[in-house]
Amino acid sequence: MIGRLNHIGVATPSIDESVKMYRELLGATSVTEKWAMPEQGVWVCFVNLPNSQIELIEPYGEASPIHAFLAKNPKGGQHHVCFEVENIHEARDALVAKGATVLGEPRIGAHGTLIIFVHPKDMGGMLVELMESPKDAHH
Amino acid sequence: MIGRLNHIGVATPSIDESVKMYRELLGATSVTEKWAMPEQGVWVCFVNLPNSQIELIEPYGEASPIHAFLAKNPKGGQHHVCFEVENIHEARDALVAKGATVLGEPRIGAHGTLIIFVHPKDMGGMLVELMESPKDAHH
Repeated sequence: MIGRLNHIGVATPSIDESVKMYRELLGATSVTEKWAMPEQGVWVCFVNLPNSQIELIEPYGEASPIHAFLAKNPKGGQHHVCFEVENIHEARDALVAKGATVLGEPRIGAHGTLIIFVHPKDMGGMLVELMESPKDAHH
Repeated sequence: MIGRLNHIGVATPSIDESVKMYRELLGATSVTEKWAMPEQGVWVCFVNLPNSQIELIEPYGEASPIHAFLAKNPKGGQHHVCFEVENIHEARDALVAKGATVLGEPRIGAHGTLIIFVHPKDMGGMLVELMESPKDAHH
């Protein structure tokens, strides 16, 4: 079922500060602009690597789900891992049939394709995002 | 400086149980055998994805550094992220020159090339492994 490791999601109190760190300390050279996803309560920004991406996530608004994560991890840290799948509804149904807890209905994610999240209790303590592979091309 | 996202390191109380989860719930089809790295206090095993890998890490021996992580995260979870670099000594020197805390001297990692770890306090709360790209080929 799972295909490419599309990205790792990293929470941060400040995308601007994190981008500075990735550029200046780790020498990253390709970083997108940040943009808001109000319906998910996050600002996002991607650090592009040759084979994958780092998604930087900063809270947007008072109800952001990232506030609780940052309360426990004030400097930020690894928030989730995203794997690509061919079809999100088939993936969701297969997981539910095997007893996994899928969080919410498929919705549009940061790459414009459908995503779901799977509860860490079923995923070895790791929050897992599944996203449909973009239909245009891999990057 | 940083190149490919070589792997994400995921701690687990049981590699066997984790492999079962990746195979049965997430449909992973390519998983290596596990092997011990006594000098690092870990059992390791890799789940191969088309563009990257998941490194499963289980404690080996009483002094394993993974015991403390699992005490805080009994189900396991994301432990580190590994980026490739061309030259580990140059990467280490550049990071130290910029004030980052590099943990220990370059040593041979699970892929047979030199690795270092960089302290999470300098990396946005994330433990970062840097490894020299294997010289043979990318996989």
